[in-house]
Amino acid sequence: MKNIVWIKHASQLATLSQSGKGPRIKKAMNELSIIEDGSIWIENGLIKAVGTTEELEELFESRAHEAEITDATGHLVTPGLVDPHTHVAYGGSREKEFEMRLEGATYMEIMNAGGGIHSTTKMTREATEDELVAQSLRRLDSFLNHGVTTIEGKSGYGLNLETELKQLRVMKRLQNEHPIDLVPTFMGAHAVPVEYKGREEEYVTLVIDEMIPAVAKEQLAIFNDVFCEVGVFTPEQSRRILEAGKRYGLIPKIHADEIEPYEGAELAASVGAISAEHLLQASDEGIQAMAAAGTIACLLPATALYLREEAAEGRKMIDAGVPVAISTDCNPGSSPTTSMPLVMNLACISMRLTPAEALTAATYNAACAIKMEEITGSIEIGKQGDVVLWNCSNYQELQYLFGVNHVNSVWKNGIKVVG
Amino acid sequence: MKNIVWIKHASQLATLSQSGKGPRIKKAMNELSIIEDGSIWIENGLIKAVGTTEELEELFESRAHEAEITDATGHLVTPGLVDPHTHVAYGGSREKEFEMRLEGATYMEIMNAGGGIHSTTKMTREATEDELVAQSLRRLDSFLNHGVTTIEGKSGYGLNLETELKQLRVMKRLQNEHPIDLVPTFMGAHAVPVEYKGREEEYVTLVIDEMIPAVAKEQLAIFNDVFCEVGVFTPEQSRRILEAGKRYGLIPKIHADEIEPYEGAELAASVGAISAEHLLQASDEGIQAMAAAGTIACLLPATALYLREEAAEGRKMIDAGVPVAISTDCNPGSSPTTSMPLVMNLACISMRLTPAEALTAATYNAACAIKMEEITGSIEIGKQGDVVLWNCSNYQELQYLFGVNHVNSVWKNGIKVVG
Ligand SMILES: [Zn+2]
Ligand SMILES: [Zn+2]
Repeated sequence: MKNIVWIKHASQLATLSQSGKGPRIKKAMNELSIIEDGSIWIENGLIKAVGTTEELEELFESRAHEAEITDATGHLVTPGLVDPHTHVAYGGSREKEFEMRLEGATYMEIMNAGGGIHSTTKMTREATEDELVAQSLRRLDSFLNHGVTTIEGKSGYGLNLETELKQLRVMKRLQNEHPIDLVPTFMGAHAVPVEYKGREEEYVTLVIDEMIPAVAKEQLAIFNDVFCEVGVFTPEQSRRILEAGKRYGLIPKIHADEIEPYEGAELAASVGAISAEHLLQASDEGIQAMAAAGTIACLLPATALYLREEAAEGRKMIDAGVPVAISTDCNPGSSPTTSMPLVMNLACISMRLTPAEALTAATYNAACAIKMEEITGSIEIGKQGDVVLWNCSNYQELQYLFGVNHVNSVWKNGIKVVG
Repeated sequence: MKNIVWIKHASQLATLSQSGKGPRIKKAMNELSIIEDGSIWIENGLIKAVGTTEELEELFESRAHEAEITDATGHLVTPGLVDPHTHVAYGGSREKEFEMRLEGATYMEIMNAGGGIHSTTKMTREATEDELVAQSLRRLDSFLNHGVTTIEGKSGYGLNLETELKQLRVMKRLQNEHPIDLVPTFMGAHAVPVEYKGREEEYVTLVIDEMIPAVAKEQLAIFNDVFCEVGVFTPEQSRRILEAGKRYGLIPKIHADEIEPYEGAELAASVGAISAEHLLQASDEGIQAMAAAGTIACLLPATALYLREEAAEGRKMIDAGVPVAISTDCNPGSSPTTSMPLVMNLACISMRLTPAEALTAATYNAACAIKMEEITGSIEIGKQGDVVLWNCSNYQELQYLFGVNHVNSVWKNGIKVVG
């Protein structure tokens, strides 16, 4: 028995399809390739036809009875959202720390009460693989309910060989146990663990000489990410870590210029990173370098909101020719959210992306940032049947009526998983 | 047949109950009166008992079979949320204008394309009562899905006698046709309509001499609100309008100090307003005056976010002894959202309220701001069975895991309306 889905009569079917490969910039980011009264035919998980309902009725008239039909009249339909930057597989929860901070506790009081990033490292180290899987599955359910069908996930709360591998194995299990596709990134260089304080260079050596080879041997990651920031890893250390990953086939990513300008954008371009993250403090030279190299800017406006920072200059980057993707940055310290719809809203409100650009940044360009653009991120023949039907009649409304999860139904690989 | 609901085993039942009347300030805002392993018995729409599950098991052992039982193990349970400031009953939609602005259109280009506040007035005037009801019912459904069981709604997109009355009649129908309780506010002084440009004083006279008496005669409103702002209504005009309303039994409210400091907070205190709204630019003297008068500050952090303004100083106001409520400000121009959960999150993130204060501001204090505290806003014997069960295990999580609608189930007057 075949599994066939036919979504018909979408008032706007935003396919995001375009000729040409690679992430989109400027005009193409603002072009959603919308079909009015649109239709999608999905067979055994893959998109087999896209067009107007009239066109598909002609093609499939004789087979309509085989399909599970959804009437999308009055609704916007888009590709499943892609979240290209998460730290989803972490242990513990830090809501008490959030409260302490708002009740006026100092940094040291929070640290003494067991808070801060190192508390997540501790809880992630102490958790069993099963516990981490169970916690993370609940987060993946929330992502799915918000229209997200593909995410990236980073290690980096282990900060020792054993726990970094554990986090990556957890993500491998999540990929098998949950409908969402999870693309793994190794991020041993997320922080210097407390036990290496004053011996940072030794930790860099551990990452390069032991962690990266072990990760590559088990084929646990596609990308290698590093937190290049004043007081964390220098640009020079970051470059060595990323170059070491490249020798093992791991594609570079880089947390760059988040808190202070540190030439992270420049480094991303020169080391051939597929994307640079955050970029709140990126220099004009760095933006130019990224545009020239085609490095994707992965911007995280929910993090900026949560930390009460000015969001990255998304508008300026797009105008400078940098392809922009957006992400939740889902993590327990600086962005405990799973809502890509809110991130799209914030991309418009705080970074001045247009509604169309925000959707491109959360679908096709996001897929490009994690090398998934051949199989998802747009509605095109041969791609996975990853589709969202929204309680909106047009793509502008999706961003304008903000702060609301407008998801009506979600299909992943042609199977209805929400709605 | 009786309608009986028994919600049992809530891991945290935040009742918000406290001895003493009137809106809460400072310490009391941070006190949720939480019962662990909590239980609520609701009979024919009203709360009949609240306590630990053990206590209620003793009371109702023999009648358990009569009740529709919900096991809330692992869940936070709170009063239904109250939104004390909306402009929900408007005509049309302005998502195209949102896009134009982000694509770089100037104010004049948007006006020429039919945008801006006057476009909503035009669309509200042109809409039939049935059309306005239908549009607004969809928004009320969204409020309910976000845990809101009571809202205030303002007229003010009519700006002529006929349409102001039409908006208020629409709200009366909404009150009858939807589970949400809707408390109506007359706001003829929301703007000066274009046809009165240069003749503002004539419009003030119209509001005072014709609109207010007509509204009072039909008993269409409880409150009388005015937009006191540079270029809209002066403090002197605002005072006259509010005093006129008082003579007809309408309780004053005031949109104060939103864009420029204009001594709106001072006016609110001196005219005996139940609440003052926005207050982004309120002076220290105004805040002191409000504290002394017991005027509720109704703060709108989603509007500030949408307009990229600094949010009002909620932390400072609470510390100064002002009771704070929060609201969506749901309206098509400056806050097209229906999410009180996001507003609570923003109250913590942008205004530095604690998680407990944010919940008080969205329940009990919000009810006080619209004189509904005798019948909703807390879980106490004799009040309406307005209850939300959340997909959170504690009240901190509700604010910490931000940007997500954590509603699991909603009861309104003891009837399950969501979940
Ligand atoms: Zn990150
Ligand atoms: Zn308002």
